[in-house]
Amino acid sequence: MTAHRIAVSLPESPAGGYEILVGGGLFSALPSILSRFCPAPRYAVITDDRVAELYALKLSRNLHAAGHRTDVFAFSSGEANKTRDTWAVVTDAMLEAGLGRDCAVIGFGGGVPGDLGGFVAATYMRGLPLVQVPTSLLAMIDASVGGKTGVDTPMGKNLVGAFHQPRTVVVDPDLLQTLPDAHLRAGLAEAVKHGAIADAEYLDWIEQSAPALLAGDAEALCRLIVRSVEIKAEIVSGDEFEAGRRKLLNFGHTVGHAVEAISDFALLHGEAVAIGMVEEARVGERLGITAAGTSARLRRVLTRLGLPTSIPLEFDAAGVIERTRTDKKARDGRVEYALVESVGTGSAGPHGRWGHPIADETVAEVLSGVGSRV
Amino acid sequence: MTAHRIAVSLPESPAGGYEILVGGGLFSALPSILSRFCPAPRYAVITDDRVAELYALKLSRNLHAAGHRTDVFAFSSGEANKTRDTWAVVTDAMLEAGLGRDCAVIGFGGGVPGDLGGFVAATYMRGLPLVQVPTSLLAMIDASVGGKTGVDTPMGKNLVGAFHQPRTVVVDPDLLQTLPDAHLRAGLAEAVKHGAIADAEYLDWIEQSAPALLAGDAEALCRLIVRSVEIKAEIVSGDEFEAGRRKLLNFGHTVGHAVEAISDFALLHGEAVAIGMVEEARVGERLGITAAGTSARLRRVLTRLGLPTSIPLEFDAAGVIERTRTDKKARDGRVEYALVESVGTGSAGPHGRWGHPIADETVAEVLSGVGSRV
Repeated sequence: MTAHRIAVSLPESPAGGYEILVGGGLFSALPSILSRFCPAPRYAVITDDRVAELYALKLSRNLHAAGHRTDVFAFSSGEANKTRDTWAVVTDAMLEAGLGRDCAVIGFGGGVPGDLGGFVAATYMRGLPLVQVPTSLLAMIDASVGGKTGVDTPMGKNLVGAFHQPRTVVVDPDLLQTLPDAHLRAGLAEAVKHGAIADAEYLDWIEQSAPALLAGDAEALCRLIVRSVEIKAEIVSGDEFEAGRRKLLNFGHTVGHAVEAISDFALLHGEAVAIGMVEEARVGERLGITAAGTSARLRRVLTRLGLPTSIPLEFDAAGVIERTRTDKKARDGRVEYALVESVGTGSAGPHGRWGHPIADETVAEVLSGVGSRV
Repeated sequence: MTAHRIAVSLPESPAGGYEILVGGGLFSALPSILSRFCPAPRYAVITDDRVAELYALKLSRNLHAAGHRTDVFAFSSGEANKTRDTWAVVTDAMLEAGLGRDCAVIGFGGGVPGDLGGFVAATYMRGLPLVQVPTSLLAMIDASVGGKTGVDTPMGKNLVGAFHQPRTVVVDPDLLQTLPDAHLRAGLAEAVKHGAIADAEYLDWIEQSAPALLAGDAEALCRLIVRSVEIKAEIVSGDEFEAGRRKLLNFGHTVGHAVEAISDFALLHGEAVAIGMVEEARVGERLGITAAGTSARLRRVLTRLGLPTSIPLEFDAAGVIERTRTDKKARDGRVEYALVESVGTGSAGPHGRWGHPIADETVAEVLSGVGSRV
């Protein structure tokens, strides 16, 4: 078994950074990886009931067999449960179980257990060491890398949280075999984003490889994971707290988060981001920031991957815009957008802030064209 | 006006550290201090209703007059409200008010608004800049320095929280004029702790100055604040995340937290710590770690300051010990105590871990003597 090792360099962090390990079969090697990267007398595995049903027994057995004391804390799956209430319930269960400040947390599952487990780790007794073991494509290439943790509030996604870097991230593409097709597609949206903001050739490759990726071809998926993690790791390195270029990773996410919330999470995160990227590219094109044709190109790739590319007709454009205003990227009352100059090149924006403050009216002009586009 | 400036050096932190400003009249200078140390388009002042009643109007007027946009978020005073629920309510109110990621938080009040406001700052949109403006003696010399933030859970104090360092701490001893006597005394307990763990001469001075301190003498209080903050800043510097010597600051707090919780917060934190220091010194004496006579010396000083020095008779020793087991300092099932070798000298403990794992039975032998001591 040869694992890829991708470094995240964090000069401002005490440990200096960490490595993301990618390779088929790594899940079985987790006990020795924990001993090496995150030794602890006791581990809290935080996951959801769907992942627990598939993998928790195997995980517990492996860890117990290696002498690792392990407790599994599973909550009901779904973005609707990524809340402060679930965080409090998991925290209290860990306190009841007597886990102390010397324990470690394993965030095990898709983006929801990863974000919520990470936030528990960030706040339990003022912080426990964390290892991320993602099981969805989205979590493998995006959510588990970079140290963002948090939960949603009624006002919007990820509005409460913390930066809390993992000791390591263990990515085993074999776990994708149990991932539902819709979730595989949704994960591919974030890979498209990585191509769109940083690597045009990678986007070409994704487009060409769409059939293999959608069929779950192990080699294609592993290659995609490695390249996406490389891009994300490179962007996160040197901008741990998202003061600059890291903001590019929010491309598609301002409109995306709004649409996702309005759908009441009927749209998967990746589906909403797919829509968001096309809409935000159109906004950029209208302002002359994004090269003409960029939104059309993104729409073509996303369509090949079976992803939606426009806001559902029943959504109200004004409602979407209203929702963007509670986005974390809003500053001093103006919403900031991460935009691209062209496919493969992010826009540094005015004053190199990597964010474009854009008036609601401009976004409204683009979004209100939604209906006529059908 | 001459302000004392005391540096907290944090080599592992991006900013490298911060300064604590101590001086009479600094409260009025807050607008310019904010402009210099924590510029932001908008400030969220987090406080409790008692502090708000006394000072919020003055604070808002000062900040508004200087052109700082300010919103005040006040919750009901008291340790019983330092909860996840209050944290969520304050967070939601800030979201409703439209505060974005570029805003800053001012933790304004005693230890409770400081800890809770700090935890809001640590977690609101993954972290806002924070300035602490303590109004109680305990917050001035202890809680506001060092970056510990958090809230209580039904299982114990500060079990959920984060390390989140302030940009600066602004200490104006004039604000103590409105502090109730019992809270002044409770704050002095933490000063005794600073003497006990690090500076025997300081403890002598506190004992001699007891009448002046209890009478609210401005010069004596200012001198006490400066020396206590110096000691705390020196200990926190170089041990931001409490991996080593910083644990000494927990002297008196293992038994203290347990007693405080069992009293249902009828005992003030400082009163509980006073009791805890005497009991933990007795535990140390019994184990031969702490020099004979230390507990008697501490009891004498604390008594002069009008503080309690033994566990209330109606408390059950077994209940206190049970409660220590949910303390954050419990590791792998054993409770760790910070102890002193003698007055003015903390104990490095086995393997230089600055913590002594002590069996419940040993603590029980000391505590069960409580009744017979009367």
